[in-house]
Amino acid sequence: MKTLRIGLIGTGYMGKAHAIALRAAPSVFPLSALPVCDYLAEVDEILAARKARELGFARSTGDWQTLVADPDVDVVDICAPNFLHKEMALAAVAHGKHVYSEKPLALNAADAEIMADAAENAGIKTLVGFNYIRNSATQLARDIVSSGEIGELVHFRGRHNEDYMADPEVPHDWHTRRDTAGAGALGDLGSHILNMAEYLTGRYISEVFGQLQTVTCQRPLADGSRMVPVENDDQTQALLRFDNGLIGNIEASRIAAGRKMGLAYTLTGTKGAIVFDQERMSELQLYKHEGPKGRRGFTTLLSGPDHPDYAAFSPAPGHGLGYNDQKIVEVRDLIEGIAASRPLYPDFRDAWRINRLIDAIERSHAEARWIGLD
Amino acid sequence: MKTLRIGLIGTGYMGKAHAIALRAAPSVFPLSALPVCDYLAEVDEILAARKARELGFARSTGDWQTLVADPDVDVVDICAPNFLHKEMALAAVAHGKHVYSEKPLALNAADAEIMADAAENAGIKTLVGFNYIRNSATQLARDIVSSGEIGELVHFRGRHNEDYMADPEVPHDWHTRRDTAGAGALGDLGSHILNMAEYLTGRYISEVFGQLQTVTCQRPLADGSRMVPVENDDQTQALLRFDNGLIGNIEASRIAAGRKMGLAYTLTGTKGAIVFDQERMSELQLYKHEGPKGRRGFTTLLSGPDHPDYAAFSPAPGHGLGYNDQKIVEVRDLIEGIAASRPLYPDFRDAWRINRLIDAIERSHAEARWIGLD
Amino acid sequence: MKTLRIGLIGTGYMGKAHAIALRAAPSVFPLSALPVCDYLAEVDEILAARKARELGFARSTGDWQTLVADPDVDVVDICAPNFLHKEMALAAVAHGKHVYSEKPLALNAADAEIMADAAENAGIKTLVGFNYIRNSATQLARDIVSSGEIGELVHFRGRHNEDYMADPEVPHDWHTRRDTAGAGALGDLGSHILNMAEYLTGRYISEVFGQLQTVTCQRPLADGSRMVPVENDDQTQALLRFDNGLIGNIEASRIAAGRKMGLAYTLTGTKGAIVFDQERMSELQLYKHEGPKGRRGFTTLLSGPDHPDYAAFSPAPGHGLGYNDQKIVEVRDLIEGIAASRPLYPDFRDAWRINRLIDAIERSHAEARWIGLD
Amino acid sequence: MKTLRIGLIGTGYMGKAHAIALRAAPSVFPLSALPVCDYLAEVDEILAARKARELGFARSTGDWQTLVADPDVDVVDICAPNFLHKEMALAAVAHGKHVYSEKPLALNAADAEIMADAAENAGIKTLVGFNYIRNSATQLARDIVSSGEIGELVHFRGRHNEDYMADPEVPHDWHTRRDTAGAGALGDLGSHILNMAEYLTGRYISEVFGQLQTVTCQRPLADGSRMVPVENDDQTQALLRFDNGLIGNIEASRIAAGRKMGLAYTLTGTKGAIVFDQERMSELQLYKHEGPKGRRGFTTLLSGPDHPDYAAFSPAPGHGLGYNDQKIVEVRDLIEGIAASRPLYPDFRDAWRINRLIDAIERSHAEARWIGLD
Repeated sequence: MKTLRIGLIGTGYMGKAHAIALRAAPSVFPLSALPVCDYLAEVDEILAARKARELGFARSTGDWQTLVADPDVDVVDICAPNFLHKEMALAAVAHGKHVYSEKPLALNAADAEIMADAAENAGIKTLVGFNYIRNSATQLARDIVSSGEIGELVHFRGRHNEDYMADPEVPHDWHTRRDTAGAGALGDLGSHILNMAEYLTGRYISEVFGQLQTVTCQRPLADGSRMVPVENDDQTQALLRFDNGLIGNIEASRIAAGRKMGLAYTLTGTKGAIVFDQERMSELQLYKHEGPKGRRGFTTLLSGPDHPDYAAFSPAPGHGLGYNDQKIVEVRDLIEGIAASRPLYPDFRDAWRINRLIDAIERSHAEARWIGLD
Repeated sequence: MKTLRIGLIGTGYMGKAHAIALRAAPSVFPLSALPVCDYLAEVDEILAARKARELGFARSTGDWQTLVADPDVDVVDICAPNFLHKEMALAAVAHGKHVYSEKPLALNAADAEIMADAAENAGIKTLVGFNYIRNSATQLARDIVSSGEIGELVHFRGRHNEDYMADPEVPHDWHTRRDTAGAGALGDLGSHILNMAEYLTGRYISEVFGQLQTVTCQRPLADGSRMVPVENDDQTQALLRFDNGLIGNIEASRIAAGRKMGLAYTLTGTKGAIVFDQERMSELQLYKHEGPKGRRGFTTLLSGPDHPDYAAFSPAPGHGLGYNDQKIVEVRDLIEGIAASRPLYPDFRDAWRINRLIDAIERSHAEARWIGLD
Repeated sequence: MKTLRIGLIGTGYMGKAHAIALRAAPSVFPLSALPVCDYLAEVDEILAARKARELGFARSTGDWQTLVADPDVDVVDICAPNFLHKEMALAAVAHGKHVYSEKPLALNAADAEIMADAAENAGIKTLVGFNYIRNSATQLARDIVSSGEIGELVHFRGRHNEDYMADPEVPHDWHTRRDTAGAGALGDLGSHILNMAEYLTGRYISEVFGQLQTVTCQRPLADGSRMVPVENDDQTQALLRFDNGLIGNIEASRIAAGRKMGLAYTLTGTKGAIVFDQERMSELQLYKHEGPKGRRGFTTLLSGPDHPDYAAFSPAPGHGLGYNDQKIVEVRDLIEGIAASRPLYPDFRDAWRINRLIDAIERSHAEARWIGLD
Repeated sequence: MKTLRIGLIGTGYMGKAHAIALRAAPSVFPLSALPVCDYLAEVDEILAARKARELGFARSTGDWQTLVADPDVDVVDICAPNFLHKEMALAAVAHGKHVYSEKPLALNAADAEIMADAAENAGIKTLVGFNYIRNSATQLARDIVSSGEIGELVHFRGRHNEDYMADPEVPHDWHTRRDTAGAGALGDLGSHILNMAEYLTGRYISEVFGQLQTVTCQRPLADGSRMVPVENDDQTQALLRFDNGLIGNIEASRIAAGRKMGLAYTLTGTKGAIVFDQERMSELQLYKHEGPKGRRGFTTLLSGPDHPDYAAFSPAPGHGLGYNDQKIVEVRDLIEGIAASRPLYPDFRDAWRINRLIDAIERSHAEARWIGLD
């Protein structure tokens, strides 16, 4: 069987999730190639060696540039912090590697465009890890929308709110610096809900009106030595227009007390509506404006084998998918995109759109006006 | 015991709700005066007489001007469609009557200001029926916010969405005409959520950025003879700034498939959050960012006798209040405002603010910019 | 218009709820007679006079026997504690009054039978206040079951659990004495769920197997002077067989920490299921085992004007009924039963069945065997 | 690193779940030995070879007896239908292999006892796949109970209801035959909830009173040729007594329309309560009978890194675990039980208890009396 050798850079939160998914995927899905956990890079040799052992990678290095240059690596999997994506991806592309990168793709649209151009010129395949669109319930939502089952969409409401920085004592780190993170909540979480908005509606967002706010303007350094300014948004909200006239709005917040995985959306159509909350990721609420009035209401659909990609995990409905299962679907899509030439979404070009939307929302805020994307 | 003789104008949806509340209130609450269902006006004598019999009013008339001029009437209760509020209220005020009016107060801020000025000049008492702020759970939310229990507010999200016009076959009526309704969903439902935003936060909204949309641009006349244009918004969304820097957003829609009583809000503070949905009107979700991390989550508070105004309805928690119970609380507030000189909120002056906000949102949409309210 | 003069005995929790409902009902429903809040009895003259004033009754007395003998009283409304029902009802019947009694009807089946016999012999009308069956959502559940919409029933699960005695410091009172309350949680709450079981299924329970338990075996007297034994059950559970072979189970508890109004049921049929929880009294969950598998799930039906008795409260769906609204429906049923000769359910005979079931569950527990009812 | 070579028998629903978990576990948890997917047995060579390829096993065989005798196999993993467990386990034990078996362990207690005795005599390790007790939220529930956080337990309610046989057209298969399945819903699903009852309470069930029912008495053969009798229960309910006086009840049903993964429990204590539903497997509802009355309610705890075993899957709360993640925890427990001599629960001896409870419930039904265990 054909193999794809994976070179993983970064073994934090996302690096481990990728490793789990890479190992589990072949037992879950029939794949056109077998992903091989081959090479792992971390910030130094010792950590890299330990992580390789823990996550089941054959080789390790303290120098990611060695990894991207290694002739046996087929796919470079970038799980390093945002500000490193560009350099790593360009290096990988320069060596002709396929690239699987975490999101957001870049710190801004200009960088993302350079990356997308480079990838296209090199003819390599890319995939960006907006994993929430792989969830079975969300794939189902997309199918319901695209089939017209709830009519024409009239409104989209989305949010991705969490509270990981709700406490003002949470220290300043790379998330709160402009040069390492780019936008704040808008970049980290807003990128997901913007991607979700386009995925679910099947339309492009064409105009945005945004409002950003930094609520905790200073945070302590991790060592508590002094306070430093927070350089990006704690919370953002924006009104949207899509290219077909559809309107909607989004929120992104990292200070939304109580929300742990608060990605949620409501899709309203002329004949029905869908409500989803990632904190109940295996449930989709579906309303149809049909049948006797006394029998209309939101129906709770538990993810099951009649929904996209669920059956590979379990033949029994309602048994529940988890966060890491989304990554397993994503790995399947990566493998099939490379080994079976299936379309990859979102690739670097698609992810560039998300960076453009982020930039447009920031600019809209600064200029207090609607900003259009061509 | 002192009495307050009520003259009710209009016996549709709200007129009946007022009648139920006027009759029940004295058994629920100790009152400083007894409301007497005295006089009822409808569009003709026959209907008025029938409705008076059904709703338990002593006298009736087909001419509301007779009612407002009647020397025995203490309070004129206006439950006629929006476009009649102004004329009726001004006539009542001219006769020195207290006025209890349904919302929105007027078709626009200019009219509302005339009404508020007239009421204040006449020295009469007024109350406008934004009844959702009387619900025990919502009063509790306000208490939690104002006590600082969830810290300083950092975000307000509100919506009042329903689907009574989701079906494009729902005919054109006074709701869809500018000269009879003023704004559409924004006026009918948005007025509630704007009032709620100020009530809950205890702050004034100082700037708005709105987006309105008419989705069903034509509707049939009731007799099906022809299609006529819809003259106001089916759905509106707006970003908000409050006078203390707090930000937020609202939605109002009459075409939100699936939402029957879709007033909902989320209040996020620095130390916690509150989530409420009027479709579960006896539940408040409260999150506190305190205690062991593994025990943090939203707590479902069922309305009970330890919450505002509940005990008068039942000594037992969780037994549930209903829509009409809110009106009973409102009637209590009306009676106490008049007979015991307690503050009345929202009076005509407060309701004028809501009309100003509606106008500002419309203007913001037209001019594509933030509109401030002094 | 015909009137029915009401003589109310007892003005605690239920007495007030009856008063509210009696006053509101004529504005809510068209009635065949007008209930008049005429006479009120309490334990002494002073309290009676005060309560009459508060609840809007014309006359008052400190002697309930005077009330039941009063020639102007048409209906005696018994809201006194359980152990007084028998004496009061028999006296009322002896004076030819119709009787509206709170539940449970009696302390045991023998007493209830005497009461039912007396009422039938006197030819008067009776109604017992099992008010939860009047809720619109529960009436809808009954309609769905009886129409066959969820097929043949295969299982009934019910509980009525509350936590008003969860705290062992809650003092001994009439609820915990055998001679004043009869059974404990089983009598107070179990009576509701047993009535509900028969109402919803439309079948008689024919055999029971029960298990009772007193968890807090001693409680302090209200003055804290000493501990006295608790004489009845804190919690009960029972297996059921209905006369058509259907099986099910019930629970009743007064020590179920967290449950405030914890009446809940699940009806499972061959073609669907219904789930209901009184803490969300305006929601019914309906599942139909039909249609595409990927679209099956429980649908949340919000009570609305297409459901039984809702439209009289509001023309708009989802606006929510409350606890007292159930009593308004009950009063309507009482009035129509008396003034328009509609069937009254549950009357004393039906309520005797409930007392028999309670006795049978207690006996089953004592004898550790199934107990059949004829 | 030490390895444990796994020989998997059976690759249906559970076989695949085991394979996924065996592959993913080493990336999720630090393990004392590395499980190696070594050998796979299916009903014939061809299927076995295909499944080995799909699930990532090195070798395959059409003869399970070859597998259990293979000297390189350390652990025999039995995922074949219930009626084969005994023969396979005894053969594995005879070859000195550790055994990881799906549940229920055996068709009856007598067989289970033989298996437990054999395993103990051979000194090998065993684990039975009651996977729902591995879920983070359920482990948390157990911790809350055992720490006394909700006081002394006063009631346990549990159910495991599904609807996979709700449709009477679902054909007769091994589930509905006494000689292949043993008990019906009671064995398949009741075994889980009985295990859960003992796991959560930390007590043994000492007496049971059961009621079984076969609702669909005949089902078609798979080829539709004729109807054959169903030989075991479609639904069962039972009252329970635990060895410390605690009472409770359980249900198991395979015809519970609407329930897909309907394992649910409520634990009521003197100071609080826990409510859980496996259909929302990453949520635990916790109520504490403490603090101001107006702030008491059930708190929704989303599984997170402060709860047992969650952090290995994700450092972020609320991200959600899935069905297969439970199996990953189970595999970790298996490996640590064997390689690090940690206690294994439930082993064959514990699982024998479950079979004894199943038998006792059946006998109780037959004899219409409480049945005690020792």
